[in-house]
Amino acid sequence: MLKDEFDFINKIKPKYVQQTSLIQGIGDDAAIYRSNQMFDELICMDTMVEEVHFTRQTMTPWMVGYKALAVNISDIAAMGGIPTYYLVSIAIPEGWTEEELKQIYEGMSDLGKKYSMDLIGGDTVSSKKGLIITVTVLGKVEKGTCLLRRNAKPGDLVFVVGDLGGSAAGLDLLLRHSLDYPYEEFEKQLLKAHQQPIPQVEAGRILATSGENISLNDISDGLASETNELAEASGVDLHIIFDKIPRNDHMTSYPIEQQKKWCLFGGEDYQLVGTMSKDVFRGLDPIFHEKKLKLTVIGEVTSGSGNVYLYEYKQKEKLLKKGFNHFGKGD
Amino acid sequence: MLKDEFDFINKIKPKYVQQTSLIQGIGDDAAIYRSNQMFDELICMDTMVEEVHFTRQTMTPWMVGYKALAVNISDIAAMGGIPTYYLVSIAIPEGWTEEELKQIYEGMSDLGKKYSMDLIGGDTVSSKKGLIITVTVLGKVEKGTCLLRRNAKPGDLVFVVGDLGGSAAGLDLLLRHSLDYPYEEFEKQLLKAHQQPIPQVEAGRILATSGENISLNDISDGLASETNELAEASGVDLHIIFDKIPRNDHMTSYPIEQQKKWCLFGGEDYQLVGTMSKDVFRGLDPIFHEKKLKLTVIGEVTSGSGNVYLYEYKQKEKLLKKGFNHFGKGD
Repeated sequence: MLKDEFDFINKIKPKYVQQTSLIQGIGDDAAIYRSNQMFDELICMDTMVEEVHFTRQTMTPWMVGYKALAVNISDIAAMGGIPTYYLVSIAIPEGWTEEELKQIYEGMSDLGKKYSMDLIGGDTVSSKKGLIITVTVLGKVEKGTCLLRRNAKPGDLVFVVGDLGGSAAGLDLLLRHSLDYPYEEFEKQLLKAHQQPIPQVEAGRILATSGENISLNDISDGLASETNELAEASGVDLHIIFDKIPRNDHMTSYPIEQQKKWCLFGGEDYQLVGTMSKDVFRGLDPIFHEKKLKLTVIGEVTSGSGNVYLYEYKQKEKLLKKGFNHFGKGD
Repeated sequence: MLKDEFDFINKIKPKYVQQTSLIQGIGDDAAIYRSNQMFDELICMDTMVEEVHFTRQTMTPWMVGYKALAVNISDIAAMGGIPTYYLVSIAIPEGWTEEELKQIYEGMSDLGKKYSMDLIGGDTVSSKKGLIITVTVLGKVEKGTCLLRRNAKPGDLVFVVGDLGGSAAGLDLLLRHSLDYPYEEFEKQLLKAHQQPIPQVEAGRILATSGENISLNDISDGLASETNELAEASGVDLHIIFDKIPRNDHMTSYPIEQQKKWCLFGGEDYQLVGTMSKDVFRGLDPIFHEKKLKLTVIGEVTSGSGNVYLYEYKQKEKLLKKGFNHFGKGD
């Protein structure tokens, strides 16, 4: 995997946010840093590094820009918010042309336009090796409706919006064949899942404006990691049925064990995972259908202590952030 | 010089901010992205790159954190604003220990505390070479009082807050001798100007809350560059008398030509330069005295077309962003 995220920021952040009680969402995808009568204001910041998150072999400059903004918009979507503005800082090594830099900005702009987002600031500096792009996105959500990770309750259903595994499958193809290989149509769809993920803003908005108690997370690091974050933040256990996990339609020709790894640990699908009560699901399911957004129940929440369990072939396994822990039946 | 900034962001930014007329300060140090009844909200984003803006030889990890936040706070100070929150994204190469990373955050926190600023988000990722730190700072300024570069008017005085050249002089020492050399006391003061610049927030606040028409810029790229930005943004000419430029007290043992280069082109002093009317100066000068803040008149503004002239030994030279253009007498 190219991906190599540190969890350092989340380990150290609580130490530096003791001064005010105004900030919510610390540890969530975006922080709520101020509120007025109508809105809670959101902010997030994510970085993509060449040779860590992308290479010249996996993404065009336009895609680098698109995705750097998309992953930040996804953080706002995970709070149920509306993205509003963005700032971008790029550290540029030798070998990138001005035309390629323009393409990066075009990629951001083409996505930003969908949400009427303006670029309002940033920086451009030199890098000694590899292009590094950091984006800050501002957003807002109706006051008090923000969808935090800590909202999961026993009895809730676990749901996923969209389908999973496509991004990791696409990356696998790109690492084997590079950008300009004559891919088949289904492979192109997998590439697209990796290169041009579509942030689930509309789904996030439906969930937030419902006014219901819903927990939510975007799937940047794989379903295993994100469900564990929900379980930990809410102090509950999540029980996931593997067969129910919505898998990307275009990877059916791969072995099931491979699909499983991509869905659970691949990451970068930028879909949503969360929990809501059965009643809320009954109310929202028709709305998702009408909007042609895929909402899938994959399990349920029980009281517990922050663990996630995966059920497959009548086996129950503890699902860790980065892998399985096989306890066998009856655990 | 280590410093190597692209002007690319400012060249390309106007293309992507056409969608709303809400944004002010594009091309200024920070953007005004929203307003409520009392405040205009500010945001800025700056990046520091190892081996471009600092090395292991010029800065400790604590200083890297301190300065990465300081240069962003300075952008808020240049708008007359109050800094409120910060986010930080760090791309970390091999060879940095967890203790060193903690020191980076400590450096930010120690400065942030002075302004009751909280760290509210960010990211930590891997870098293939060199540590890259990007900081976003949020701030606010009383509605309509923001000090933009375009505010300079013919008849105004040109002023500087603080003194200049110290940062470049300190960097010169560090590149020759490294961090742990037995520096003399005056040399240590020059190092400090480079490693731990003090953002002029208090001075910016005095200027903004005066309610007067004042143009302002922070001195990140040297006086020559910053005065040219004021002249261009305001469509006026600035006339600077070299002998009046407040030079760092600790560099008097260096040749005057060296001091001149450091003051005009050295950059990273993070002091303020701006313009105000003579009447406003008479009103504000005692307040700066009382607060022990150094306010120095260095020239004046005439109608013109965005040029800066430097006067020395009865010679007049056109002062370009990056160097001199000698026209000789009478130009």
